[in-house]
Amino acid sequence: MLTSTNTLAIEKKMVPGNEVQQVELLAGVEDLYGGIIIDMEKTMDSEAFVPLLRASLSQWKQRGKRAVWIKLPIELANLVEPAVKEGFKYHHAEPDYVMLVNWISKSTNSLPKNASHRVGISAFVMNDKRQVLVVQEKSGKFKGTGVWKFPTGVVDEGEDISMAAIREVKEETGIDTEFVEILAFRQSHKSFFTKSDLLFVCMLRPRSFDIQKQDTEIEAAQWIPVEEYAEQPFMKKHDSFSSVAKVCLTKSEKEYAGFSPIPRTTASGKTSYLYFNTKDLTQL
Amino acid sequence: MLTSTNTLAIEKKMVPGNEVQQVELLAGVEDLYGGIIIDMEKTMDSEAFVPLLRASLSQWKQRGKRAVWIKLPIELANLVEPAVKEGFKYHHAEPDYVMLVNWISKSTNSLPKNASHRVGISAFVMNDKRQVLVVQEKSGKFKGTGVWKFPTGVVDEGEDISMAAIREVKEETGIDTEFVEILAFRQSHKSFFTKSDLLFVCMLRPRSFDIQKQDTEIEAAQWIPVEEYAEQPFMKKHDSFSSVAKVCLTKSEKEYAGFSPIPRTTASGKTSYLYFNTKDLTQL
Repeated sequence: MLTSTNTLAIEKKMVPGNEVQQVELLAGVEDLYGGIIIDMEKTMDSEAFVPLLRASLSQWKQRGKRAVWIKLPIELANLVEPAVKEGFKYHHAEPDYVMLVNWISKSTNSLPKNASHRVGISAFVMNDKRQVLVVQEKSGKFKGTGVWKFPTGVVDEGEDISMAAIREVKEETGIDTEFVEILAFRQSHKSFFTKSDLLFVCMLRPRSFDIQKQDTEIEAAQWIPVEEYAEQPFMKKHDSFSSVAKVCLTKSEKEYAGFSPIPRTTASGKTSYLYFNTKDLTQL
Repeated sequence: MLTSTNTLAIEKKMVPGNEVQQVELLAGVEDLYGGIIIDMEKTMDSEAFVPLLRASLSQWKQRGKRAVWIKLPIELANLVEPAVKEGFKYHHAEPDYVMLVNWISKSTNSLPKNASHRVGISAFVMNDKRQVLVVQEKSGKFKGTGVWKFPTGVVDEGEDISMAAIREVKEETGIDTEFVEILAFRQSHKSFFTKSDLLFVCMLRPRSFDIQKQDTEIEAAQWIPVEEYAEQPFMKKHDSFSSVAKVCLTKSEKEYAGFSPIPRTTASGKTSYLYFNTKDLTQL
């Protein structure tokens, strides 16, 4: 994403009578989809902002631009209301900024959608004695239930699923692991406000065995026999959990092919992980 | 998510001298994590809002609340700046509202994170003649390249991946399909601003064969032999695409187990799809 460093630009404008007039505009950078992105960095009061915004919108409409984006850092919250009054809507927000957008074209609105899913991992870590690493959490819906569960956590934006699984196990239990594969995943809805949720069940191989639990989030952590984990009444009661336990037991006893991460280069030249059943592919 | 219908509530407050005073507060509903959610529905000017917000924050701090959420519809953009001045930060936004939050507890901030990923599907649809359904798009990075690609699209929040795949194929090509399984998926980063991306490669079985292409997004659509698809120079040049093509060819010729969606009941009683290798599990 390109950013501009100046808030103002001077442009020439044709006015009736074929005269050329200099006009002051907000400085924006063009994106690849016919849009203009204004990255407001300096403070400005709304009396200065509104005429500049109006002149800019008018120019960009004339030039056939389709959308105008304004990124307002939280320090410029004073400009949210004026932007909304000029026809902008919210697109997304992070703690320190809100991104507004105005579709100025007469064509059908084809703005890209906001992020829709939160992503999490659940870590199945088994040692050579067929014991699995389990925890009890200090908050959340399992608090005080006595249920032993796999370490879980949130995948941050920009973080690989496999790295998030290794990080969360280390943070919660102090155990070093290496990533093996994804055994299953679950998609659920309305987990948080209107957003959906993807939870990846990851298998990891332990590289250390002495538990050093994290005190703020984790009440207790231990290694227990995998069968004991699966036999907990809570696990047997909810088929979402019993199915995951069955997948993990199958993996521990027999052939079960999950999806392994393989680094691949995309069309834009970036390296991304492609996850697939490498076992069945290799057997070609 | 609970919502309040009133903007005001009257509460009793102890003041020095053991007197009880009536105090007007913003009406909020409590969430399960020690937070208060204020769903502002009626217009209010900032002169009325600020004293109410201050009194409310003071009361909720005394009661040991950890966080205060304010949902402001875009019509109430006038209250964004005053809320920010009282210590609120943005949490997330959708076109018609912004959600702000203020962590008022002295304990470590444990606010849930915003959605981090956009989710998409790529649809591998093959008929009995080993022809695959492919399209050329009118916009985006493949525009004008002559590359024939699988139909792709965005999974909406609240939408099942399998349903999104069926919907997108129908919208773009008019072909009816049934979902078979997920063959692979790719996670990439910074695809759109700072957000990450998950793309699921879905196999679908066609139930109709006459293409009715959608005119606004799709330049052309046709059935072509699967080998012809895989042999396109573009596909061979980028290993992200050639690997997906190889997975699809393997699936079309031999045994390849992807992940199938199985409905499961979660601990909260909702039905969610769990995707896993059902073939290896059944062979137990």
